[in-house]
Order: sequence, then C-alpha cells, then structure tokens
Amino acid sequence: MKYPAHLLKLISVLKRLPGVGNKSAERYAFQLLTWSPEILREMAHIIQEVPTRLRHCSECGCLRGEDACSLCDERRAATQKICVIASPRDAFAIESTQEYRGLYHVLGATLSPLQGMDAEQLLLHKLIERIQRHQITEVVIALDSTIEGDATALYIRQELEPLKIKVTRLAFGLPMGSSLDYVDGGTLARAFSARNIY
Amino acid sequence: MKYPAHLLKLISVLKRLPGVGNKSAERYAFQLLTWSPEILREMAHIIQEVPTRLRHCSECGCLRGEDACSLCDERRAATQKICVIASPRDAFAIESTQEYRGLYHVLGATLSPLQGMDAEQLLLHKLIERIQRHQITEVVIALDSTIEGDATALYIRQELEPLKIKVTRLAFGLPMGSSLDYVDGGTLARAFSARNIY
Repeated sequence: MKYPAHLLKLISVLKRLPGVGNKSAERYAFQLLTWSPEILREMAHIIQEVPTRLRHCSECGCLRGEDACSLCDERRAATQKICVIASPRDAFAIESTQEYRGLYHVLGATLSPLQGMDAEQLLLHKLIERIQRHQITEVVIALDSTIEGDATALYIRQELEPLKIKVTRLAFGLPMGSSLDYVDGGTLARAFSARNIY
Repeated sequence: MKYPAHLLKLISVLKRLPGVGNKSAERYAFQLLTWSPEILREMAHIIQEVPTRLRHCSECGCLRGEDACSLCDERRAATQKICVIASPRDAFAIESTQEYRGLYHVLGATLSPLQGMDAEQLLLHKLIERIQRHQITEVVIALDSTIEGDATALYIRQELEPLKIKVTRLAFGLPMGSSLDYVDGGTLARAFSARNIY
C-alpha cells in the first residue's frame, strides 16, 4: 500500500529542510495530519509571508525584518570596523556576545568548488567598496573553522592586501569548558601554537 | 539584537514538529529564508491543503487520500480478522510486511492518564460494533511495546472478553539482526519466556 499522493508531496517538501531525511520527514508529515486546519492555515500563512516580511539589508546583507537595518547605523560605521560573516544568522550570534560594535558584511556563502561556489560569486567588490566608503581600518573575518572557511578567509586576505588595512580573524583555541582529553588534535595544535603569556 | 517578529513566529510554528527544539527550529527557519518565494508558496499550499486532501476513513480511521479507503474492502472483511493499531501510520508499516490481510481499526491513541487519555476516550464501542457487524473471529492487537501500549492492550482484552473471540497480540522477542550483548534485559526476558521449540 502506497502513501496517498498528497502525503508524498508533503514528505518531499519537508525533506528540503536541513538534516531532515525520509524518516524525519515522514514523522513530521504524520504529525501535521493530526493538527487542526486552523494551525495548518496559520503555518502556511507564516511560511508564505517569509519573502515579504523578512528581507535582507541591501547594504550589509543581514536580516532586517520590516524596519530599517539596525546593523547599518552611523555609530557602528564610526568604529571603522567591519566583520565579514558567511550568513545573516552569524550576526545574531556575534551580537549576543556584546564583544563587537561595528558593521557587518554577509558573504552569503563560502568558497566551495564542489558546491559550485567560486571566487567570483563571493562579490568582494561590494565589500571593498564599503571598506573605502566607510574608511574602515579593521576587517574582522568571522568565518567557520572549516576547509571552506579557511579557504575563503585566505582569499579575502589576499584580495584586501592592496588596501593596506588590518585584517584579523577570530582566534582558534580550546572552546570554553572543554577538557583536554576530549579536544581533537587539530584544535589542540592550534591552541598550542597560539598560546599566550599568562 | 532580537530576531525580527516574523522570524520568531516561524521558529515557534516549526517547534511544533515532533522532536524539534529551539536549535533545530532556528536552523530550519534560517534555511527557509534562503528558499525562493515559489518554493515557499508551494510548501504553504501543500500544508494548507492537508485537511482537504488527506482524510481519515470514517469506518477504520486509516488515512485514505481522495479515493475510497482501500483497507475497508469486502475481501479483507471476509478474512474475519481485525487489527487494532494506535495510529494510521501503523497500517502502512503492517501492510508493507505483507503478513496480514484483514481489516484495521485505528484507536487514535493509547491509554495515558498523564496525557489525559482515559478509557472512555478510546471509543471501544465502535470497535465492538465492527467486530459484531463483520463477524470477526480474531482481533490482533498491534500496539507499541510500551507502558501505554501494554495498558491499552490489557484493557481491550478485558473489554472484549464477553464476546468470546480470539484476541492475539504481536509477539515479543529479539528484533531481527540483534546481538544478545546489546539487547536490553526486558526484551531478553520476554524472548526467554516466549521461547519456541526449534
């Protein structure tokens, strides 16, 4: 006995969510079947409204809701710092640390030849234009500590070299609360080579 | 910096999915932000159409799509067997084994006083009415091997006692491909007490 056609459609759309395979999508779909029509309608409405209600700032690329972008104000520009991030989500994480008060620049992606992302698609000219316009003195690269993040950081550093400005990258080391026994070799090696006077 | 209001709404609706907490819901929501308006509209449409496109058979309670219920035909009734399941999903799993060709009866829930499910809500009178109408000779209880499943199975057996028909329950034992080292004590004990001549 096969699933009804509409159930198959529902499962296939749920499988587009990140990390959701067949089993989870089926579980979600069968759960949806038990919801009231009102809740389903509300969910459909919220999903459909995403493109109109949630926009990306055309300047920095961060998420901005329906108001003006709160991350592009003059006080931030006055710090003459810009932080390069891979996705709008990273801005929320960095903001919540309260360690940084400068501009942001969303790349939208990292270099990944396998996924068809090459250097031209990073749109660095936009970043360079903003650096010049705001007379930025420090570019903080806040990218993942992965192969793609490393490659992208290296590429950005090279591209920004002619501008003769400070380019920094987030520190690598032991995560908070970690035990040496459980930390992987790569992290430990990087923590060693970046050791500080205590 | 807080998430925009619409993003919070999206996260809260995604958190209704089973096993989805804050972190997963945020991950799903940020993924949805990268989808095209067409895909979002399609997803919204599919979700909204669930109540009209996927119905439960009023006779057995199984899922039936837009056609008549394929599990309520006369050939199945002629076997004089009925299988009691907790949710419409279980019928798909049992059908795929090809071990059973009889009627189904969806309880919709199992006894669970903590979740406010008590015996009156199981609607056993509907099951009893169907047993009498189809002159059923065997009721197969296919409920989970959990406290709730056990309690419900016991209750059904007691309620069906006056009808003087065969009531069976799925066998308990070692799952296929399991190693004794990894099987829990409860399963092993049940497999021992139900051992067969080999």
